[in-house]
Amino acid sequence: MTLQALKERILAEGSNLGRGILKVDSFINHQIDTHLMFKVGEELAKHFTDMGVTKVITAEISGIAPALATAHALNVPVIYARKHRPITMTGPVYVEVAPSHTKGGDVFLMVSAEFLGPEDRVLVVDDFLASGATIEALVRLVEHAGATLVGIGTAIEKRFEGGREDLAYLGVPMVSLAVITDMSGGEITVE
Amino acid sequence: MTLQALKERILAEGSNLGRGILKVDSFINHQIDTHLMFKVGEELAKHFTDMGVTKVITAEISGIAPALATAHALNVPVIYARKHRPITMTGPVYVEVAPSHTKGGDVFLMVSAEFLGPEDRVLVVDDFLASGATIEALVRLVEHAGATLVGIGTAIEKRFEGGREDLAYLGVPMVSLAVITDMSGGEITVE
Repeated sequence: MTLQALKERILAEGSNLGRGILKVDSFINHQIDTHLMFKVGEELAKHFTDMGVTKVITAEISGIAPALATAHALNVPVIYARKHRPITMTGPVYVEVAPSHTKGGDVFLMVSAEFLGPEDRVLVVDDFLASGATIEALVRLVEHAGATLVGIGTAIEKRFEGGREDLAYLGVPMVSLAVITDMSGGEITVE
Repeated sequence: MTLQALKERILAEGSNLGRGILKVDSFINHQIDTHLMFKVGEELAKHFTDMGVTKVITAEISGIAPALATAHALNVPVIYARKHRPITMTGPVYVEVAPSHTKGGDVFLMVSAEFLGPEDRVLVVDDFLASGATIEALVRLVEHAGATLVGIGTAIEKRFEGGREDLAYLGVPMVSLAVITDMSGGEITVE
């Protein structure tokens, strides 16, 4: 399932900051290569076409771009779970908590109840699949709403963090477009 | 320059929360209507084609979607200024401060110096033009980098907050796709 252009870009511009932290600020997380990002969206969408997806859900901030690109390709709306309650979020919300790998501490993820319901078939999309903690919190939001989880799509997977194993019990397809198998030696090994 | 579909959606689903606060969570700020958002991007891009734009810049969080859609239509990268320094932001940064209308207090906006330079011609995009404070901070980031400001594009303008007048000194085109002229009586008047 590897998207060759993404793999090459990680190898060319990605930076291993140690402790499993991958810097891809030049094309994913701060500056976005729009052309590549829409390829990511199209490629993720391909794996979930004909599965009746009605909504894509992600977590702000860095999930917004890949989720929007994927939702665009699937022609469905995207919801980004909020980490802080904005003053415009006035109605009832579903709330979950996820430990943050890159920031330390816990983060809240909130979705307005009005936007997710039992009739929804939901694809979870994020920039990274690492420990799986954020994605699992998004899945729990989907469950709170009584909606159906269709699958999980991410641009980059850090397989050595074990998220894939931890989420296997969900029994849904998990698609990543570039799989990093090792960063322990200062290098970046992409499958 | 009004995008009729956006205007109609604001009138149908927008909610006036008082004190000039407009809730458009169902299609712009929390749930995103991807189809409409890409129309917004295409429409904004039209006004700045052939102006040599090399990058779009916005502020996280709610600016990401319209900026990505616009950058996609212009086929250039987009940078989203960060409000908190992530651990992957390791190099020198340009920093600006903007007062936050919806949150109170000041917010920082940071851009890695490596992504903006004197050769860049930059379009500032955001979801809202209100007081103009966030957009002005983005403009100052562009100036710090020695880059050229090409214009300002926003989905929704709250004209009664005066941002357009305050930014007029910049002498660049300012495009908004739906202009709200009044929210003082509990209604939403869209031009």
